[in-house]
Amino acid sequence: MQDAASPEPRPTPPHAALRSAARAWFEALRDRICAEFEAIEAESGSGARFVRTPWERDANPDGGAAGPGGGGGGVMSLMRGRVFEKVGVNVSTVSGEFSEAFRASIPGAGEDPRFWASGISLVAHMASPRVPAAHFNTRMLVTTRGWFGGGGDLTPMRLEAPEAVADAADFHAAYRAACDRHDPAYYPRFKEWCDRYFYLPHRGEPRGAGGIFFDHLDTGDAGRDFAFVRDVGEAFLAAYPAIVRRRYREPWTEAERAHQLVRRGRYVEFNLLYDRGTLFGLKTGGNVEAILMSMPPEARWP
Amino acid sequence: MQDAASPEPRPTPPHAALRSAARAWFEALRDRICAEFEAIEAESGSGARFVRTPWERDANPDGGAAGPGGGGGGVMSLMRGRVFEKVGVNVSTVSGEFSEAFRASIPGAGEDPRFWASGISLVAHMASPRVPAAHFNTRMLVTTRGWFGGGGDLTPMRLEAPEAVADAADFHAAYRAACDRHDPAYYPRFKEWCDRYFYLPHRGEPRGAGGIFFDHLDTGDAGRDFAFVRDVGEAFLAAYPAIVRRRYREPWTEAERAHQLVRRGRYVEFNLLYDRGTLFGLKTGGNVEAILMSMPPEARWP
Repeated sequence: MQDAASPEPRPTPPHAALRSAARAWFEALRDRICAEFEAIEAESGSGARFVRTPWERDANPDGGAAGPGGGGGGVMSLMRGRVFEKVGVNVSTVSGEFSEAFRASIPGAGEDPRFWASGISLVAHMASPRVPAAHFNTRMLVTTRGWFGGGGDLTPMRLEAPEAVADAADFHAAYRAACDRHDPAYYPRFKEWCDRYFYLPHRGEPRGAGGIFFDHLDTGDAGRDFAFVRDVGEAFLAAYPAIVRRRYREPWTEAERAHQLVRRGRYVEFNLLYDRGTLFGLKTGGNVEAILMSMPPEARWP
Repeated sequence: MQDAASPEPRPTPPHAALRSAARAWFEALRDRICAEFEAIEAESGSGARFVRTPWERDANPDGGAAGPGGGGGGVMSLMRGRVFEKVGVNVSTVSGEFSEAFRASIPGAGEDPRFWASGISLVAHMASPRVPAAHFNTRMLVTTRGWFGGGGDLTPMRLEAPEAVADAADFHAAYRAACDRHDPAYYPRFKEWCDRYFYLPHRGEPRGAGGIFFDHLDTGDAGRDFAFVRDVGEAFLAAYPAIVRRRYREPWTEAERAHQLVRRGRYVEFNLLYDRGTLFGLKTGGNVEAILMSMPPEARWP
């Protein structure tokens, strides 16, 4: 897709000038993450590779969330490996118009419904119950305003286990360092936001060990915010593969595997009952396979 | 729970006089269904039995759907067998007051928020991919008005397979006969309602082969409506065990089992994304284990 073909919302926020750079960053990050995960598979003796499937977004003629005149699409990268039982990395860049029903709730869409969005989103479900599952995403949205959103969170299977506590500490430390380089208020605020967001109220349970979550980030300096978002990506890339590498060779028991499959059921419950991106995507005609790439390969409700 | 302890909505619909009888019927039907399913397990050489777990409904102090002064509870019956990989049958009888947020959407609750509800609900996930999964429920609601709701639907794993077509035909024939004994308009109307309800719009797929679905049934003759509801239960009891018996000994392949697990993922998607009872229950503080008894024992999103 040519950026030149996208509708140009007016007034133009500074983010509009970053569209190509943001998209290029998300796609380059995808390449680096996929290469790293494939390297881990190779270290384990597996030859598993990501399979990339491009998809196009249909312009939605009946005025869903993204209405007429929309376009773009994405690439879903999926790997089924020995270490990564199922990992999906999706990048997408789409544009269109928000339907009337959505305009009121989207910053800057009241004046002009046109939008442009680009992002990367990742979910890793691991073969070993000793390796935590992970979720990561970052995105840039442009309407008559512009902002970034994203985050990452870790889901160890047994939150109280010493190895899970150590993994979570490292994961949080990486995000804290990335946040602190930009604003000392970020980490406590975005960590708390993550804890609040990734929570299953019907169970009274957190989804996992948390991480950070942020949305509508617009400090007034789009370049600075983009630099933060890049550091959030770097933090994930530095922290998560290291956790995977130190855990995946640990032996595990059938009981741990059975427990993992139950925990994955909770992951399904969260994503289908509460996750805004999942519900928004499914109910507005998004690409089903790309959205539900986040579902675990196997789950149990015994 | 003593019916005498329930709040008595005024004005009193004729259904109020049927409360004890409806509850007794739902519980007796549960006993008959469980006995029949246990008999099938015994025929298969398994000694599997239902395990019954009573639960009490907490009066919801913060005014959820069922607000202060509520009470009651239910019994969850769960069997994990050789033929029935996981089958749950829940009966419940609860009373309380609908919160303000719900009153407008509940018939008769605008005048007086108090309600009484009793029902039976069943979901069977079968070990063999050749045996269709089944769902059945019937309930009576009493506010200042009274009505019945319920239905049943069959989920064969391969809708087009000849055996699935034959099973669906028998299942529908049983419901058609039950409906036709009461009103020739019922079957076409309730079948269409079922097809519309058990549909996954994000996939463009039906959940299964359908059956019947009805709600807010109040012809003005509560006794007649209750007789219809009893016949709906009898139809399920006549049709489904017969289908199970003729299918469970058929050999199946690993590919069929793998496909079954994917189809169960669709079942999860429907229940968590769209099923009104599930969402209503989970979001208003219902008994989580009883509500999510409907989840399959194992599911895949490969």
